[in-house]
Amino acid sequence: MSDFLVQPDPGDARLTRRVTGVDHEGKAVETSVTMERPLTLFLNGQEIVTMMTIGDHPDCLAVGYLLNQGMLRPDDVITGIDHDDEIDTVVVRTQRKTDYEQKLKKKTLTSGCAQGTVFGDLMDEIEAVRLDPDAVIRTSWLYALSREINTTPSLYLEAGAIHGCVLCQEDRALIYMEDVGRHNAVDKIAGYMALNGIGPEGKSFYTTGRLTSEMVIKTARMGIPILVSRSGFTAWGVELAGQVGMTLIGRMKGKRFLVLAGQERLQYDADLSHIADEDQRHRRKGSSKDDAA
Amino acid sequence: MSDFLVQPDPGDARLTRRVTGVDHEGKAVETSVTMERPLTLFLNGQEIVTMMTIGDHPDCLAVGYLLNQGMLRPDDVITGIDHDDEIDTVVVRTQRKTDYEQKLKKKTLTSGCAQGTVFGDLMDEIEAVRLDPDAVIRTSWLYALSREINTTPSLYLEAGAIHGCVLCQEDRALIYMEDVGRHNAVDKIAGYMALNGIGPEGKSFYTTGRLTSEMVIKTARMGIPILVSRSGFTAWGVELAGQVGMTLIGRMKGKRFLVLAGQERLQYDADLSHIADEDQRHRRKGSSKDDAA
Repeated sequence: MSDFLVQPDPGDARLTRRVTGVDHEGKAVETSVTMERPLTLFLNGQEIVTMMTIGDHPDCLAVGYLLNQGMLRPDDVITGIDHDDEIDTVVVRTQRKTDYEQKLKKKTLTSGCAQGTVFGDLMDEIEAVRLDPDAVIRTSWLYALSREINTTPSLYLEAGAIHGCVLCQEDRALIYMEDVGRHNAVDKIAGYMALNGIGPEGKSFYTTGRLTSEMVIKTARMGIPILVSRSGFTAWGVELAGQVGMTLIGRMKGKRFLVLAGQERLQYDADLSHIADEDQRHRRKGSSKDDAA
Repeated sequence: MSDFLVQPDPGDARLTRRVTGVDHEGKAVETSVTMERPLTLFLNGQEIVTMMTIGDHPDCLAVGYLLNQGMLRPDDVITGIDHDDEIDTVVVRTQRKTDYEQKLKKKTLTSGCAQGTVFGDLMDEIEAVRLDPDAVIRTSWLYALSREINTTPSLYLEAGAIHGCVLCQEDRALIYMEDVGRHNAVDKIAGYMALNGIGPEGKSFYTTGRLTSEMVIKTARMGIPILVSRSGFTAWGVELAGQVGMTLIGRMKGKRFLVLAGQERLQYDADLSHIADEDQRHRRKGSSKDDAA
């Protein structure tokens, strides 16, 4: 049934913790909360950054982060990835000698979640991006993806307070990663794609988070021409999507969505009378206000 | 009726932009999207960071950011704040000579939104924080605050894709700031408090975002003992709240909420039969999944 190569593992005890508290009636309750732990990333001998992450797929997170920051080149040969669970470090080693001393000094904090940092020349680099103009997305695929993603068991459904990103192909969800920081989830997908030789051809990208400038930049860097979200848009996100020729679909809930860039890739093939509006039963936990997610 | 000292100004044309697109039926639509623009912050002669922000209250954002990062001390004398709208800069000048060359090198990217950066010694500093053990929060105040915040006109209701934070006193919402980055909204409140001589005594803090470690750290730095959110918790957020003696109230919607730390400050005085469950009419726009906001 499922085509997932990777999907959330809400049963993994390391990713959540049981805690106790009281509810609105003063009754004692026990609930699950999402873990967040530090992971310090080294590229060869150089300490790059300390990220807060739920802690799964550290190898994908490390490689994806470096790729999405332009510190690893697509043609770099990775000679090793060493993750040390005890001291919370991951070291990526490459054949090429790397040095990002200067690059690390120039940072822009962006408006999205976690790793909200665009290094100096990132904006320049995406100006060279050319996204596939012939890619298409059918509305029937959008509805099928939305249904599958929202009903797949996840840490979100188990403990909340987490973001999800999904690499999709036509109507199939392939790689579903979650993290406390949305950008960790994106980077883990980029890392998995690089480590497993999966290209952007024919792919679309789904996120639970907002369609901000940095989400558009990261998706463009990955070469993926279609970005879909349950959440809303920022003005710069829309503008950048237009510049790089990306299709930007947001506020997708039930049968509703809005396309604010690249609408020429959309093919309306779904029979809307068979698509339910999002009701309480289908709605993901949390129930309100994901526009700011 | 309203006690707001500051509240959102959804009519300010600089904060949103009208854009056109198509909807799920292929119909042309026009909608508002939130602005995000760069603001480069200087402390005296030193460039500190470039933030993405909606752009209102740059003076509050600048001062609050520096305070919450420990780069301004509470007793520092500010001799000037110069905002230049054309080149998107804000310069804060102090009597004391400042130098954060070393501090700027040691960064931890955290899991929340924007400015998700905790400088090296921030964790050490909050260990000295002592939050008022005698502060209380009544459930009737929580419900009154929740109702007022959710019905006040805002950029969120106008354009979505934005976070809100509110400084509260008893059942009164005092300072309501919004921003594309949640941490900008927090920092703008901290800056407003500092610039207007408003202390943390008797205050609580409401956020639309998740209760992560960095939200707890920022609230603790502001000296506010009670933190409330519509959204969910992370494990480290709960742990830190316990360490600093903060009351942490999350998943607050309609009559429901959950307290995972500091429950001794809570006073149950509301008649729950008069509090409505959150229904479609009262629900803020967006309608789903704010646990990951």
